[in-house]
Amino acid sequence: MNYRMIGYLLGIILLIEAALLCLPMIVALIFGETTVPFLLTIGILVLVSALPVLFRPKNTRIYAKEGFVVVASAWILMSLFGALPFVFSGTIPNYIDAVFETVSGFTTTGASILTAIEGLPFGILFWRSFTHWVGGMGVLVFMLAILPSDNGHAMHLLRAEVPGPVKDKLVPKMRQTALILYGIYVALTLLLILLLLTVAGMPFYDSLVNAFATAGTGGFSVKNASIGAYNNPAAEWIIGIFMIVFGVNFNIYFLLLIKRFRDVWKNEELRVYLAIVLVATTAVTLNTLSYFQTTGAAIRTGFFQVATILSTTGFATTNYDLWPTFAKSILLLLMIIGASAGSTAGGLKVSRVTLVFKNIFRSIKQIIRPRSVNVVRQEGEIVSERTLHATASYVSIYFIIVILSTLLIAIDGFNLETNLSAVLACINNIGPGFSTVGPTGNFAGFSYFSKILLTFNMLVGRLEIMPILILFSPTLWKKN
Amino acid sequence: MNYRMIGYLLGIILLIEAALLCLPMIVALIFGETTVPFLLTIGILVLVSALPVLFRPKNTRIYAKEGFVVVASAWILMSLFGALPFVFSGTIPNYIDAVFETVSGFTTTGASILTAIEGLPFGILFWRSFTHWVGGMGVLVFMLAILPSDNGHAMHLLRAEVPGPVKDKLVPKMRQTALILYGIYVALTLLLILLLLTVAGMPFYDSLVNAFATAGTGGFSVKNASIGAYNNPAAEWIIGIFMIVFGVNFNIYFLLLIKRFRDVWKNEELRVYLAIVLVATTAVTLNTLSYFQTTGAAIRTGFFQVATILSTTGFATTNYDLWPTFAKSILLLLMIIGASAGSTAGGLKVSRVTLVFKNIFRSIKQIIRPRSVNVVRQEGEIVSERTLHATASYVSIYFIIVILSTLLIAIDGFNLETNLSAVLACINNIGPGFSTVGPTGNFAGFSYFSKILLTFNMLVGRLEIMPILILFSPTLWKKN
Repeated sequence: MNYRMIGYLLGIILLIEAALLCLPMIVALIFGETTVPFLLTIGILVLVSALPVLFRPKNTRIYAKEGFVVVASAWILMSLFGALPFVFSGTIPNYIDAVFETVSGFTTTGASILTAIEGLPFGILFWRSFTHWVGGMGVLVFMLAILPSDNGHAMHLLRAEVPGPVKDKLVPKMRQTALILYGIYVALTLLLILLLLTVAGMPFYDSLVNAFATAGTGGFSVKNASIGAYNNPAAEWIIGIFMIVFGVNFNIYFLLLIKRFRDVWKNEELRVYLAIVLVATTAVTLNTLSYFQTTGAAIRTGFFQVATILSTTGFATTNYDLWPTFAKSILLLLMIIGASAGSTAGGLKVSRVTLVFKNIFRSIKQIIRPRSVNVVRQEGEIVSERTLHATASYVSIYFIIVILSTLLIAIDGFNLETNLSAVLACINNIGPGFSTVGPTGNFAGFSYFSKILLTFNMLVGRLEIMPILILFSPTLWKKN
Repeated sequence: MNYRMIGYLLGIILLIEAALLCLPMIVALIFGETTVPFLLTIGILVLVSALPVLFRPKNTRIYAKEGFVVVASAWILMSLFGALPFVFSGTIPNYIDAVFETVSGFTTTGASILTAIEGLPFGILFWRSFTHWVGGMGVLVFMLAILPSDNGHAMHLLRAEVPGPVKDKLVPKMRQTALILYGIYVALTLLLILLLLTVAGMPFYDSLVNAFATAGTGGFSVKNASIGAYNNPAAEWIIGIFMIVFGVNFNIYFLLLIKRFRDVWKNEELRVYLAIVLVATTAVTLNTLSYFQTTGAAIRTGFFQVATILSTTGFATTNYDLWPTFAKSILLLLMIIGASAGSTAGGLKVSRVTLVFKNIFRSIKQIIRPRSVNVVRQEGEIVSERTLHATASYVSIYFIIVILSTLLIAIDGFNLETNLSAVLACINNIGPGFSTVGPTGNFAGFSYFSKILLTFNMLVGRLEIMPILILFSPTLWKKN
């Protein structure tokens, strides 16, 4: 393992975090709040990262395993340092709680241990929402976009951070790919801020933080009642639609930019994703009609809740925990599916789920017609046996982690619905679940053990299992 | 497809069922009850099966797909006809309910729609428990054991009916294998009956029916309070231990018979299975200590509940639904794991779960040391990539069926815990779940739609998914 290169890359990441922290510091300054928590954290970050960054190693070559280690360590370190402003400001005095909140931010989960949000410092809440935006597209992708780097090692880093069963690159050069991704991300976020300001008439600060949480499909809100607090149908529609937009594979927007509309139209994952939105919204709306005074409100709220759960954002405009079991079960299903690969969202991803189904049909065909050649195609291309096997393995590991985590947090004594949905809400990077952790509840009641386990679940979900498992694998640390 | 051979084999199966029905008829005769329900059913079975059996086709060759079709159709037909005595006797007037109960019997699930069992005719209850025993080792295995048949087609039938990721044959000749399996099955059942009669002092009729339900790992009981009704610690220990015994791969008993003790001692699946029993019993007992007056009662009840759930039997000696969430979550985990491959039990099977874990470790190793050769071994032998892929696929399909079924039965409006545990209890062939379908509850409250879906789940679980999926696959029925 190239430890010095790993150290160098992690140093850069922490310097980037220090730079990012200047933004909430400016916000604190504007609102006349203390900037000490941010200054302290920035100072610590610069101190820690100075040494490894100043001595750039001669041998910069890294392989897949270093890629996984850098990505997993980067996410953990950024969260450990990113939690400091919460502690220094006294907003979240306990460090484990602060780390939970920060990991929840970076992984775009949005699960909170805060019981009351309104009244907290503007700078701190800005940082909290900003972590969503930073984590949504990924910090390493950001690093690749701004720094010149070796195409080979960039690929290993990008592969480990960008979600989905198959990792496309938009253009051969990794730096270009990263730049295009961030370009699209920034443009869509600015458009959303503009719409919230003008069409929905939302205050500037609220437009910013809600746009960050929407773009990263995170779900932290600056109101106790989430988006529901605004009582603003226009804002609900805009945010609802943009949650869906940020759950689309960013390749699609690239294809739109280079005018390959036919490819967009024929994109399977997009079609299935939008079909799920349509079917789920219809089913939920019909099942909850009697809960609303007008059909319009039922459709708007049904669509918003489907969008927020499928895109794994986690905003709420209603307490869906009170809905009939059928509507809740649809949300449970959407939790697991998640949005598209290559988006800012979590979950298993639509393309992975469709791949599993295609694999089932293939197995059936193989038994019925053993002599015919059966291949699985996705987006017009033959999927390799290796990818099919990896996908099936991924899904089985995923469910094993869900079940074991549900078992372990059961020690706290909450009911099964709370525990299962808490784990699903964390591993799929959604935020709220059902019952105690429902849209009006929070994660404050869990023991520190459970909070650490759920933090682990959030990281496992955001980085798609392998990087975290590899970092904690004894084999990695054994001498060859 | 060789339709005539399929018809012939199905005819034989139904004739065997007619013969098996004579046993409960004799019981009815002994207790002075009407034999009409049984006579009628036997008559119908003989009429239906006469034609296909009389005209044995010249071309007896069948392939894998016919094997799957015969097995799936045989289980469905046996259940459709096996339900008739319940309807004719008026015990379960509704045919869908009767089919649910019969499928639950044959698949050794033990989920019941009966709200009161005591007082029902002895003959009918005997048939209900006897279906467990018949379904436990499998009807087709029975047919192979008693009829001379082609070794090739026997293999296809055995493969489709015997559970587990890898299908071993004990001896090269399939008929011999089937005979040995049934020999061990009968011997262990007789031993259990003897112990219940002598050591536990249980009445003869009760010893018989409880032994059937234990041997098949079914769980139907003739008492409303299940095994708890006897208030008999000796019976609880004996049945508890035998549930574990019938959850062991029958190959192990064959190895014991031919004195290959070293192979038994080194058997991985057996070791993991027994380790799970030990760890789960300890954890459950410690977690529920305060619920009992003596530590002895806590251990006995903890062990019994672990044995009943892990072996997927479904007997109860206490209402574990009132236990703390941690103990309940352990039971939930055991529900999914299930017992060993090649046993009469359901669930994912220990060997399949260990295979998934080994596959995870392999993937981790492959990333860390990409140039080393990584193979997965089980029971000392290298597992093929094909089997690994099939196992991962199996687990992913399994969870998809669980989630979709939980969604669909949610229309009935029960809570999430009821729905999820009802599906798990059916697909893993256990019987009781939690909440409404807990050990003191039953499945009577579900709609007919949900009952049919759960029936489907029981068959899918017992036949390990593929046969049922293939039977209902449109590809099978399309002209080539």
